[in-house]
Amino acid sequence: MTTRSGRHFLQIPGPTSVPDRVLRATAQPTIDHRGAEFAELTLDLLQRLGPVFGTGGPVVVYPSSGTGAWEAALVNTLSPGDRVLAFETGHFAGLWRAMAERLGLEVDFVPGDWRRGVDPRAVTERLAEDRTHSIAAVMVVHNETSTGVTSRVPEIRDAIDEAGHPALFLVDTISSLGSIDYRHDEWGADVTVACSQKGLMLPPGLGFNAVSAKALAASARARLPRSYWDWTPVLEANERGFYPYTPPTNLLFGLREALRMLDEEGLANVFARHRRHARATRAAVNGWGLEVLCADEREYSASLTAVLLGEEHDADKVRQIILDRFDMSLGTGLSRLAGRVFRIGHLGHFNDLTLAGTLAGVQMGLQLAGVDIDPAGLNAALDLLRAE
Amino acid sequence: MTTRSGRHFLQIPGPTSVPDRVLRATAQPTIDHRGAEFAELTLDLLQRLGPVFGTGGPVVVYPSSGTGAWEAALVNTLSPGDRVLAFETGHFAGLWRAMAERLGLEVDFVPGDWRRGVDPRAVTERLAEDRTHSIAAVMVVHNETSTGVTSRVPEIRDAIDEAGHPALFLVDTISSLGSIDYRHDEWGADVTVACSQKGLMLPPGLGFNAVSAKALAASARARLPRSYWDWTPVLEANERGFYPYTPPTNLLFGLREALRMLDEEGLANVFARHRRHARATRAAVNGWGLEVLCADEREYSASLTAVLLGEEHDADKVRQIILDRFDMSLGTGLSRLAGRVFRIGHLGHFNDLTLAGTLAGVQMGLQLAGVDIDPAGLNAALDLLRAE
Amino acid sequence: MTTRSGRHFLQIPGPTSVPDRVLRATAQPTIDHRGAEFAELTLDLLQRLGPVFGTGGPVVVYPSSGTGAWEAALVNTLSPGDRVLAFETGHFAGLWRAMAERLGLEVDFVPGDWRRGVDPRAVTERLAEDRTHSIAAVMVVHNETSTGVTSRVPEIRDAIDEAGHPALFLVDTISSLGSIDYRHDEWGADVTVACSQKGLMLPPGLGFNAVSAKALAASARARLPRSYWDWTPVLEANERGFYPYTPPTNLLFGLREALRMLDEEGLANVFARHRRHARATRAAVNGWGLEVLCADEREYSASLTAVLLGEEHDADKVRQIILDRFDMSLGTGLSRLAGRVFRIGHLGHFNDLTLAGTLAGVQMGLQLAGVDIDPAGLNAALDLLRAE
Amino acid sequence: MTTRSGRHFLQIPGPTSVPDRVLRATAQPTIDHRGAEFAELTLDLLQRLGPVFGTGGPVVVYPSSGTGAWEAALVNTLSPGDRVLAFETGHFAGLWRAMAERLGLEVDFVPGDWRRGVDPRAVTERLAEDRTHSIAAVMVVHNETSTGVTSRVPEIRDAIDEAGHPALFLVDTISSLGSIDYRHDEWGADVTVACSQKGLMLPPGLGFNAVSAKALAASARARLPRSYWDWTPVLEANERGFYPYTPPTNLLFGLREALRMLDEEGLANVFARHRRHARATRAAVNGWGLEVLCADEREYSASLTAVLLGEEHDADKVRQIILDRFDMSLGTGLSRLAGRVFRIGHLGHFNDLTLAGTLAGVQMGLQLAGVDIDPAGLNAALDLLRAE
Repeated sequence: MTTRSGRHFLQIPGPTSVPDRVLRATAQPTIDHRGAEFAELTLDLLQRLGPVFGTGGPVVVYPSSGTGAWEAALVNTLSPGDRVLAFETGHFAGLWRAMAERLGLEVDFVPGDWRRGVDPRAVTERLAEDRTHSIAAVMVVHNETSTGVTSRVPEIRDAIDEAGHPALFLVDTISSLGSIDYRHDEWGADVTVACSQKGLMLPPGLGFNAVSAKALAASARARLPRSYWDWTPVLEANERGFYPYTPPTNLLFGLREALRMLDEEGLANVFARHRRHARATRAAVNGWGLEVLCADEREYSASLTAVLLGEEHDADKVRQIILDRFDMSLGTGLSRLAGRVFRIGHLGHFNDLTLAGTLAGVQMGLQLAGVDIDPAGLNAALDLLRAE
Repeated sequence: MTTRSGRHFLQIPGPTSVPDRVLRATAQPTIDHRGAEFAELTLDLLQRLGPVFGTGGPVVVYPSSGTGAWEAALVNTLSPGDRVLAFETGHFAGLWRAMAERLGLEVDFVPGDWRRGVDPRAVTERLAEDRTHSIAAVMVVHNETSTGVTSRVPEIRDAIDEAGHPALFLVDTISSLGSIDYRHDEWGADVTVACSQKGLMLPPGLGFNAVSAKALAASARARLPRSYWDWTPVLEANERGFYPYTPPTNLLFGLREALRMLDEEGLANVFARHRRHARATRAAVNGWGLEVLCADEREYSASLTAVLLGEEHDADKVRQIILDRFDMSLGTGLSRLAGRVFRIGHLGHFNDLTLAGTLAGVQMGLQLAGVDIDPAGLNAALDLLRAE
Repeated sequence: MTTRSGRHFLQIPGPTSVPDRVLRATAQPTIDHRGAEFAELTLDLLQRLGPVFGTGGPVVVYPSSGTGAWEAALVNTLSPGDRVLAFETGHFAGLWRAMAERLGLEVDFVPGDWRRGVDPRAVTERLAEDRTHSIAAVMVVHNETSTGVTSRVPEIRDAIDEAGHPALFLVDTISSLGSIDYRHDEWGADVTVACSQKGLMLPPGLGFNAVSAKALAASARARLPRSYWDWTPVLEANERGFYPYTPPTNLLFGLREALRMLDEEGLANVFARHRRHARATRAAVNGWGLEVLCADEREYSASLTAVLLGEEHDADKVRQIILDRFDMSLGTGLSRLAGRVFRIGHLGHFNDLTLAGTLAGVQMGLQLAGVDIDPAGLNAALDLLRAE
Repeated sequence: MTTRSGRHFLQIPGPTSVPDRVLRATAQPTIDHRGAEFAELTLDLLQRLGPVFGTGGPVVVYPSSGTGAWEAALVNTLSPGDRVLAFETGHFAGLWRAMAERLGLEVDFVPGDWRRGVDPRAVTERLAEDRTHSIAAVMVVHNETSTGVTSRVPEIRDAIDEAGHPALFLVDTISSLGSIDYRHDEWGADVTVACSQKGLMLPPGLGFNAVSAKALAASARARLPRSYWDWTPVLEANERGFYPYTPPTNLLFGLREALRMLDEEGLANVFARHRRHARATRAAVNGWGLEVLCADEREYSASLTAVLLGEEHDADKVRQIILDRFDMSLGTGLSRLAGRVFRIGHLGHFNDLTLAGTLAGVQMGLQLAGVDIDPAGLNAALDLLRAE
């Protein structure tokens, strides 16, 4: 059977399935971005965004992808030639590093094996070595979307503090925000980078920077050229509910609806739901006799799981079979993981039965691809869902 | 966990999950129902509807539920006091009979055990006894939505012919049309009754009568009072693409989109898909060690499956647990089946992974309700989905 | 210029332009019509509907057009051969009469000139003549959609009372409800007939009967065959928030939103808005030197205006020019008014500038059709809109 | 009357009213941006975009506002300290200049009076003076959204050529693309900057750069830091239908629908429609006895009209009255024009009757604000619409 019916299972680790009510919200007629109704929308949004980032400070919203929000974090805080400390946790950490280099920064890139998060001890060591405080910023990806590994941000913060180093702390929460507990203020992040199409359950098109007072002070001195990404005019215009250039109104309509949904469910419940679905997914993976890529159980991602296949199998072939036969999209293995892993997104607008359908599709796809698995995997996941 | 996230699983045997593109189609601005654009819409729809009913004759579309289309079938063809032959195949056959009586018809109601369809031999017998041809019509429910039993309409047609009886043949295809093979012309149906919210993948609000030449001739003589349901003015107005009263324009927009989808998939594929999902569902039920209500394998429904529980269990309690824990709606046991069965809808816009999620939910719900089942049931279904 | 861009102007007297937010509401996923969420919806709707009809009694909602609600009013209250008193106020009064006759009632049809509403004195006279009280019901169209004439329902009520006649009072509010002040209880209506696609700002597909205690009592004795339209099972099921057959869920979603909108604006404001727009429309018509069809200023309709052309002009040609050149639909002249009038709908979701655009289109169309008008008409309307 | 009903008139010069079918298109479920279906979408879009820009070369689409596309044009082609030639045609020309300066460019800014476009002779003069060819680029705003003045781009091209100067030619078509004839290739533009929310009839959130071969060559040498805006990875990924970072999928769905609409109407018809509506608007302004801001009839904008008020009136007060009384948004006077002008957008998804409603609202608002106008203005516009 290959005819297509029913809803596509979009189980990549983002973009995630946008809730119907959010889609409908984005389809409202566009309004005057200089009018009172728009101002009310902005002010409401800015108030609702803070708690999601765990901050009482400002959150800058861009018409951009998450990549744009990465760039904004760098150009607002750094100057040409600045040294930054970054960590090879996976594909996206590498892309962010490459961006930093293209923008004229010098990156100390701590190597990694793509199965672990940032090692807090390495942070302390590197920063302690930097007696002159020439490192201007530490760049960390909270949840590596390419590997399903969640770095322990509070411990990294402690590590920076232990080194007594004044570097800015820049954190990418692209695939964690709204899915995994995150606290900008409490954890002392200076810029938190996020986007719309993952835990925030929106279509792509919005980038975010949560900004600490320290980051704001740094921006006054930072000399990388910036205009579009410049926080200052945004923050000024935001005070009255406006933006310095035409904002992406309809995505903002959707954002309001998505933030209402997070609020209705309660952030703590949202996080617990993601953790539970991640546990169920790992129960399935283990039940199948396969390996989760993430090697440290303290760092299991709650929003996605990368599954490692033996060398004799091509993960992309598995994915293709699953797409063709069961109309489900899974995440591919990126760069050095190509063909080795596939990634299951279990984040955003999601529930037990959709997870069950997802894991059933993976199980059948693995079998069809000739991967020798124990079909008890799915039931192991269901046992967990039933019990917890 | 009881917070609600993700998409509700609407697995009652109708209304079914309306495809997103159909919902969007219904949300188009309403147009002038006397204008050229509307006429084009109607003419296109009427042309597309024929093949779905398997007819080259007219199909009358009503702003109504399926119940209204039942009434239309009766008042257009019969006169006060007419005798009709009907069969106790389940709850809905009983409701149709009660309607006939309320409208002033005399119903010969052949008793049944709610686990089997219409027995073609009983049809021949009853009609053969009716030497004076006082029976004006035979009323049959093709697919009993309350039991998951599909009567063998072609054999019933043969039975009528064998008796050499001129009675009209009225067939309810409410939960079969667009899901289970049906052929109005080839099977000699005179009026085929249908509605929008099942295999046609629309919201409720449209009723249908496919009408044979014989039925049309009968309508000229029929004396039950009728106005709203009268075929004649509809058929006249339809010729130019209009309706005698304001048609439900937005549901018709949706109907066009839904008919396009059936056409894209191909009716034969649609029917095969439903049969395959029904087989997989029965594989799960049998795997669990439970019983399918339908007692005759020739009559298994492809659009829904009623699952029979032992006397010690309350099927509605199982349903409630599944709704509360897994946000899935299942069909309840109706009248004499109350508490004895629950019904799984696997019709309309549906696919393998949604079925897998559905069966996973049922499996977990049964376990949580303390029904002693073998959890191998789900994997039995997956084995079938994988293999076929 | 004939290419089409921008929004169509749907200025027929219904279906009216459905507000975007109502369309979006109708596009929500269909839910289980036997579940708790649906019950909540129904109970909320039934509570909100009362005030719109001006009743504390029940309102029955049908999946049907307004024509269906006409039939429901008759079959629930009357018996074969019953006499009813009706009035030739226009095309729709004639259609309702024809329906009554088809259903087996005997109609006393008081002739009229299609430019006036029901004459209350004629009501008194006719009923006073009926010493034996053989007239079972008085049927009145509140707002004749074919003529733009609003009968004075309170005065008709008084006329019935003056005659001391016990006839039921059946009122069609199809193009008045939600646009023109109407009070089921206060005005002693027994059945009020309405539909969704006019002042209620919904797509077509819902019919309504508001039912008095007297009508309900009559229904216990009424012997016209009825099943689909029977109030009793609906009222019984409504008590717990359900319907005896599958309700048109998505239109009910839209109804909730539309009722919220009426509530937000306030019914008194809604009625005042319609009256003001009607006055502005008549100011334009008079300014053009044309005649409003309605001959009695006490009976001017607030929801539509029929404009009478001289014999030398074909109103349908004017309409066609306006449709072709300005993408606006107007109402045609029906039956005896064919070619003599066109009708401007100014009801539902509507505002000053849409009215201005509408009147501008009519003015240009009249000129293009060679009708000799004074172009001061439009400005006369604007003067009124500006002043009031 | 101040209660709000009916559709808001969004007559600012962008964002414009998004067609219903485009809004519905944006509300489709988000898809995998690395899958085959997405690739097909991109390749289709890129093919359809070329003709709208009048180019056979590449068009880069960004998740950004138009401001982002400005920045992209600069950072891809220029190096720190480069000289660029720009012209003070209005508020937005000034903002683009300020951006250039913030990014480290040196701007020769030719002063202007905000009532005229770029003077082609000034272009020749300035470039002729630049013997060393130190000017790297000429920056021109095709249609000044703040003034309603359309610079004559072909003549400016000729002026550059006449000076024999190799400068790149960067053109902002933010409020002209899809509304006013524009030809990237034929007119020798090197980078054409555009966005989604004006003539393209989309919500805000997409920025565009059409890129000439010369611009592409320049980008290889340009040394302004760039990453997000870098054309190269986009063009590379575009070849197979992808993007280097998550694209704004749902806006791209809308873009496809909007491009289909432009195609259905025909670009030449679209341009003619805008010119005709602009003429009608100016007929109204002149009829009122008011002045159009644009001082050169060769430069009248077809997409918006700025209306100049006498010193004794506050244009923002007029706008506020119109918003409050008639629910219509107009464009404000920006910076030096604050309070002096209001701007009427007549672009995008628009038609005669919406224009008539718009002008009626302006006329009434002017009168209510006490501006002494001749109410013949509206009829003058209608005369033109009727005649042409």
